[in-house]
Amino acid sequence: MGAHITRANCLALDATDPLRRFRDRFVLPEGIIYLDGNSLGAMPKATPARVRQVVEREWGDGLIRSWNTHGWIDLQQRIGEKIGRLIGARPGETLVADSTSVNLFKMLAVGLRLRPDRRVILSEPDNFPTDLYMAEGLADLLGQGHELRLAPAAQIEAAICSGTAVVMLTHVNYRTGRLWEMGAITAKAHAAGAIMLWDLAHSAGALPVSLAESNADLAVGCGYKYLNGGPGAPAFLYITERLHDLASPPLSGWFGHASPFAFEPSYRPAQGITRAAVGTPPVISLAALEVGVDLLLEADMADIRRKSLAQTRLFAALIAQELDGFGFALESPPDDDQRGSQVCLSHGHAWPIMQALIAGGVIGDFRAPDILRFGFTPLYLGFSEIWDAVALLRQVMTTSVWQDPRFQARAAVT
Amino acid sequence: MGAHITRANCLALDATDPLRRFRDRFVLPEGIIYLDGNSLGAMPKATPARVRQVVEREWGDGLIRSWNTHGWIDLQQRIGEKIGRLIGARPGETLVADSTSVNLFKMLAVGLRLRPDRRVILSEPDNFPTDLYMAEGLADLLGQGHELRLAPAAQIEAAICSGTAVVMLTHVNYRTGRLWEMGAITAKAHAAGAIMLWDLAHSAGALPVSLAESNADLAVGCGYKYLNGGPGAPAFLYITERLHDLASPPLSGWFGHASPFAFEPSYRPAQGITRAAVGTPPVISLAALEVGVDLLLEADMADIRRKSLAQTRLFAALIAQELDGFGFALESPPDDDQRGSQVCLSHGHAWPIMQALIAGGVIGDFRAPDILRFGFTPLYLGFSEIWDAVALLRQVMTTSVWQDPRFQARAAVT
Repeated sequence: MGAHITRANCLALDATDPLRRFRDRFVLPEGIIYLDGNSLGAMPKATPARVRQVVEREWGDGLIRSWNTHGWIDLQQRIGEKIGRLIGARPGETLVADSTSVNLFKMLAVGLRLRPDRRVILSEPDNFPTDLYMAEGLADLLGQGHELRLAPAAQIEAAICSGTAVVMLTHVNYRTGRLWEMGAITAKAHAAGAIMLWDLAHSAGALPVSLAESNADLAVGCGYKYLNGGPGAPAFLYITERLHDLASPPLSGWFGHASPFAFEPSYRPAQGITRAAVGTPPVISLAALEVGVDLLLEADMADIRRKSLAQTRLFAALIAQELDGFGFALESPPDDDQRGSQVCLSHGHAWPIMQALIAGGVIGDFRAPDILRFGFTPLYLGFSEIWDAVALLRQVMTTSVWQDPRFQARAAVT
Repeated sequence: MGAHITRANCLALDATDPLRRFRDRFVLPEGIIYLDGNSLGAMPKATPARVRQVVEREWGDGLIRSWNTHGWIDLQQRIGEKIGRLIGARPGETLVADSTSVNLFKMLAVGLRLRPDRRVILSEPDNFPTDLYMAEGLADLLGQGHELRLAPAAQIEAAICSGTAVVMLTHVNYRTGRLWEMGAITAKAHAAGAIMLWDLAHSAGALPVSLAESNADLAVGCGYKYLNGGPGAPAFLYITERLHDLASPPLSGWFGHASPFAFEPSYRPAQGITRAAVGTPPVISLAALEVGVDLLLEADMADIRRKSLAQTRLFAALIAQELDGFGFALESPPDDDQRGSQVCLSHGHAWPIMQALIAGGVIGDFRAPDILRFGFTPLYLGFSEIWDAVALLRQVMTTSVWQDPRFQARAAVT
């Protein structure tokens, strides 16, 4: 990476950072360097007031009336529209609903029903586990010979064939941060007559995405990572308008009905994306999500991507500079155009090393079996913090503090 | 109903009400008589502080660490256990998850898979629409000749036969408040070899339920009605322990995996009720739900039932006494043991009459086509309020104020 990097270099980058003003819009605990915004985004300072409003005013005082007077009934569509702008969807193609897992099931089922003569859901073994689990569960439920077929990333394109009903991939790999070329794979899927389903869990809010330009059919994504929507925030889904009239939702609940309050005896799907809604959505969690999305919409996604790449490059360069010989291997793509907003390192003692880092105030996470994962969130992360994080990692390794027994015990959530 | 009832009689009932102390634990807006706690329960006064804590302390300061340090990872089980005590489940049989609609789909699929040689889901046409819609959707998705078969309530028992896979009924009818005899119907279903699935949306927190005693197989229910969990609060589900090892969840997400953070490539169901979990749950909405459930657990469910029956009886008696000749018909069962915690009246002008009532500060709701529905929530409703609500209804009718054009327009949510 050329010249030796100093902390002063990093401070200089902070001084000219066009996104620096956003940092003050988040609560960031004293003494913490947070490199885990890709697991759970930080809290916008505006969130508590908005949540208080929805709880005390809208629920407490408004009671049932707020479904109309405070627009709860349209929240899934309203926030969906806003997320749609972050992922390059057209108006009316994005809805907030359920969890990412449940939305995967819905979109997989929609995809399979659009290709009734095909039986294969194609994915890669390194896809996020719940994506694979949901596909397994659906194939098993249908009991008609459907199967989840896995091909390593390098062989996905070759594996798409005339039997492929749905290609299901996560745009940014959750472990390595490797990025799929959405347009190219989508075109390949379409050429074979397959439906393309993208999981944008690590993309939405992290880098520019254009579902419209890439001609994607279906997508899902997560509200609690780069969208800063709060723990377990409701997820989103996308159906291209081309397929709206053809999409047959398997979870046909009253919120997806054409006229939910007519209490008709039979299901009649709503027009457009609303048919992908199911039950009554968790309004308080939705309100928190909207604050995170609104904040992100104030920033320019090109600025976010530029800073994200500068930060992931800086981190990788500092690891090379400061931690040579300590047994770390870079598991993320070195090329900018192949990398999301995270950097992963493998190490035989990844678990205790990460625990020692966390104890020292640098929060990243561990991904089994041997990955230290660091997420970079340009809205609230400074370049000098990256320098400080690597300095702590160097200290953890040079003092061997990670060998302390207290860092060996596994937690429920890693 | 005997002697003429006066407001003084109602005040006397309030004075000796053993649940009266709970009223002060809720926020109840000035000038409102709330007879819609069966649509959206009122807000416990403790909720805002708990929500503030989970947002500001657990999320804002704790960030990702709170999954372990604040026990977010066990919230679905922890709150599920508490709800289980309200519905007579055994420990380990109840989980908070998703929406009621999504849980219906999951439990219906579990039921059908337990009876692979049968094709019929049996229900009644007056079941809550989303229950019917979800069953239709599942049958359609499976594409193996499954069907939702409907029989009027009076003919349900006769309709249970050797082809019935699942009997799906809502314990308390959402419109009329009519109550099923859980033990008897469940026994009938079992005698025919069918699985019994109960929807407890209008039962949990409203009256004593014993899933264990009634030998029910599966159940679902709602968090935002009598549990006072907040708008769109997460729902719950129940699987009898007899079936835990046999239950095969169709929505096989990572939160239902035996080891979610091992990131194994294939789904392996968790032991017990946890296998019915799917994706990451909305933590903020869960925190609000727990406050409502905790408050309910402080009361004696026998006291709640006793007061609920006294209140629904009083309301029906006052309607008979004060509104004779105005065209209202009682649609709820007059017998205590056949009635939940609500009273419904039919009237040809139900919509504008309800709008006029709401404008006057008495909130009930309208259910298509011609029902005025009034819910009675013993924790926060006084007897004298019932007197005042009926007095307003009398005034609405005697002055014909409901004919005002402003009460004719329909709202999105009714």
